[in-house]
Amino acid sequence: MIRLHVDADLATGGRVAPSPDQSHYLLGVMRLAQGADLLLFNGRDGEWRARVAEVGKRGCVLELKAQVRPQATPPDLELCIALVKRARLETIVEKAAELGCRRVRLVLTRRTQGDHANVARLSAIATEAAEQTGRLDVPEILPPLRLDALLDGWDPGRALLFCDEGGEARPALEALAGRAAERWAVLIGPEGGFDPAERDRLRAAPFVTPASLGPRILRADTAAIAALTLWQAQLGDWRG
Amino acid sequence: MIRLHVDADLATGGRVAPSPDQSHYLLGVMRLAQGADLLLFNGRDGEWRARVAEVGKRGCVLELKAQVRPQATPPDLELCIALVKRARLETIVEKAAELGCRRVRLVLTRRTQGDHANVARLSAIATEAAEQTGRLDVPEILPPLRLDALLDGWDPGRALLFCDEGGEARPALEALAGRAAERWAVLIGPEGGFDPAERDRLRAAPFVTPASLGPRILRADTAAIAALTLWQAQLGDWRG
Repeated sequence: MIRLHVDADLATGGRVAPSPDQSHYLLGVMRLAQGADLLLFNGRDGEWRARVAEVGKRGCVLELKAQVRPQATPPDLELCIALVKRARLETIVEKAAELGCRRVRLVLTRRTQGDHANVARLSAIATEAAEQTGRLDVPEILPPLRLDALLDGWDPGRALLFCDEGGEARPALEALAGRAAERWAVLIGPEGGFDPAERDRLRAAPFVTPASLGPRILRADTAAIAALTLWQAQLGDWRG
Repeated sequence: MIRLHVDADLATGGRVAPSPDQSHYLLGVMRLAQGADLLLFNGRDGEWRARVAEVGKRGCVLELKAQVRPQATPPDLELCIALVKRARLETIVEKAAELGCRRVRLVLTRRTQGDHANVARLSAIATEAAEQTGRLDVPEILPPLRLDALLDGWDPGRALLFCDEGGEARPALEALAGRAAERWAVLIGPEGGFDPAERDRLRAAPFVTPASLGPRILRADTAAIAALTLWQAQLGDWRG
């Protein structure tokens, strides 16, 4: 069934007017007619069954029928990702949504190429992926920030899994075993890796857990998906 | 340093003529000149340092200098992947190479859309990914085969991790824990999942280990990367 993220509050008997783009998607692309059912979520009120109540020239109105899932609190996992080329960055944001990240922080490092990212477009990709993957919230995409500034302002209660291509770190699964599951982030560097001064600062920070992702060189998108997977499997909501 | 996969045997003092495409890449794209060093591998003789010995109008000749890594035997892991749309299939093949698969088997299921794949192009993608990821072999890409035929001819000594969206399977990491690491394959279904009869046959096969990849719906590329990652971390060469 079609799932849509909306901003409106969701409550029994309420009516929601989807955005023009969403109306076009529902009526023009998916060919929904009056009376058709779909699912809505807003990140606060759980998932709701809704029905197309009115169809007009300029859009449609949805009537809320019943809550089908209550809002859940997923693990508090963030992805901090050095900017990479647009196509791979878009893939990474899509995958972060599928893999249950709450937030994606775009990071500028010394070896990062470029300093710009289209945050609005990445947010739209995150929303669409959240709709398709069945989650009840949408990951927030934060604009690019220098690594030094990110670490200067780091919440010391949030553990950081530093995926270190440098070599001597423990395997990620072993590094995560037995750790508390509250508030984590995964940090993935740029193609070309971190600069030695950046690695030194990261490895010295008390909140950092360095980890290795195997003996082969991974592209940034592969490394991000692998690290998020291992976190979810070892500490997150993939556990039995 | 540039790494190239070649077919030729590699031995001290040997000379290798790269293919016209490879010569163009080395001379035209990467601008190597006579005397430049690069690395070669062929899947049999380890990794070799070579030098551009001659540059001519129609290509170049490489002279082998020394073996820098002996051939290794990586884990015997296969990916069996239902055909998906071209772009995602190409991503999956690239990732299978980065994640150390020996073979990728393309599978036709009842809900698979299309029955054709460009195996030559996928093999070229696997070769390029193998060159970049630093492995010493290239994954073999096998042409599409019906799931029933794949299972009819299955080597009963090869365990099959069946990534089952059906719901009741154990988490993949738990399902893999304590298992022997010899000869495995990972099976990823099409968008839309396996048909009930296919699921029944898979779940009844003695060599099949069903496994869950968490509570969200994953696209095929995400599921493939996640399952291969968990296998490598739990049983493969990502272990400490």
